Amino acid sequence: MESYKIPKRSVERLSIYKRILKVIMDAGFTTVSSSELAERAGLNPAQVRKDLVYFGQFGTPGMGYQVSTLHRAITRIMGLHKKIPVALAGAGNLGQALLSYQGFKDRGFIIESIFDNDPEKVGKMKNGIKIRNEKNSSSEIKDKKIKVGIISTPSSAAQSIANKLIEGGIKGILNFAPIELKVPSGIIVVNVALCEKLEMLSYYLSKRKIL
Amino acid sequence: MESYKIPKRSVERLSIYKRILKVIMDAGFTTVSSSELAERAGLNPAQVRKDLVYFGQFGTPGMGYQVSTLHRAITRIMGLHKKIPVALAGAGNLGQALLSYQGFKDRGFIIESIFDNDPEKVGKMKNGIKIRNEKNSSSEIKDKKIKVGIISTPSSAAQSIANKLIEGGIKGILNFAPIELKVPSGIIVVNVALCEKLEMLSYYLSKRKIL
Repeated sequence: MESYKIPKRSVERLSIYKRILKVIMDAGFTTVSSSELAERAGLNPAQVRKDLVYFGQFGTPGMGYQVSTLHRAITRIMGLHKKIPVALAGAGNLGQALLSYQGFKDRGFIIESIFDNDPEKVGKMKNGIKIRNEKNSSSEIKDKKIKVGIISTPSSAAQSIANKLIEGGIKGILNFAPIELKVPSGIIVVNVALCEKLEMLSYYLSKRKIL
Repeated sequence: MESYKIPKRSVERLSIYKRILKVIMDAGFTTVSSSELAERAGLNPAQVRKDLVYFGQFGTPGMGYQVSTLHRAITRIMGLHKKIPVALAGAGNLGQALLSYQGFKDRGFIIESIFDNDPEKVGKMKNGIKIRNEKNSSSEIKDKKIKVGIISTPSSAAQSIANKLIEGGIKGILNFAPIELKVPSGIIVVNVALCEKLEMLSYYLSKRKIL
């Protein structure tokens, strides 16, 4: 099976399995069945088995999965077994929230550069890092060999900074700005659609006549 | 067709169609084909038509969709045609980012109450709203008849504040804390999984040997 055929939803669920396996491991269990994984993830067992088969031969029929082996395998598959330097573009409230977001650090994502276009912010220190002018972002990223960028600027600034990040060698962007970035092929953009999530909540509440 | 059978992904895509329709409308066009909608959304036309049929009879074969009619219909279907008061729990960096997030205001989500458990924050003003002690959240939400809550606290505080919000009458929660909230049936939780998005990016970059 070619890896590019793996459904995006299965990749997303790897994160969920990893999180659940950690909880089970910390509770002292060494094996887990697909039924238990499924129950904790709110899925059916067949879906869990199907998802995991995309990524390797895990588990034994009737025996279940070795918790720590599967956790370690998923961590490696996701590339989360090493530190990943990250460049942050946009040092506003959202950028600052991301800077102190423990979940990023826990997963090895280390913000090593911060860029902004606001002269009031440029030169100031945040979490031990000096905020640099976004004009210098390409060369700094190139020097530091950073491959992952986070965009937390307003929509109006997002495309321009994305271009600069990519020029500097960034290959993957986590984008918080509510616009579709235009990027060359080979560059991966994952959008965090805050508004869409809130709209979804609004839809479900409206349907139930709560709003 | 019963509305509860509408796939979650189709609901999520409504937001995308709405955003694209706004762009087309602002550009002065009055009709749009499913092919054009599909191209702009990165989908195939059959998927677009299938998604929209879940929500009503829109469009005419060979003629396409009336842009403003469809935009208005989607806005109403999602309950986004009126102001929605929201309670925010957690006035840290992320909470403050959300307070000033224009995308929420644009969609009619108005944060009317802010709660925190930090004595340093309680009593201070943020965006014209006094931060209240989370102990008082249930009664304040009840008084203000707020039905939507946003949780931007650390994981350790999320379940406890969720319980208080629900006690006060909150029916829908947008949850940024990276835990699965336990809620009574009938309460809708939409999780914003920041870490999972970053893990997904890590996976795709690892697969291409970039990380």
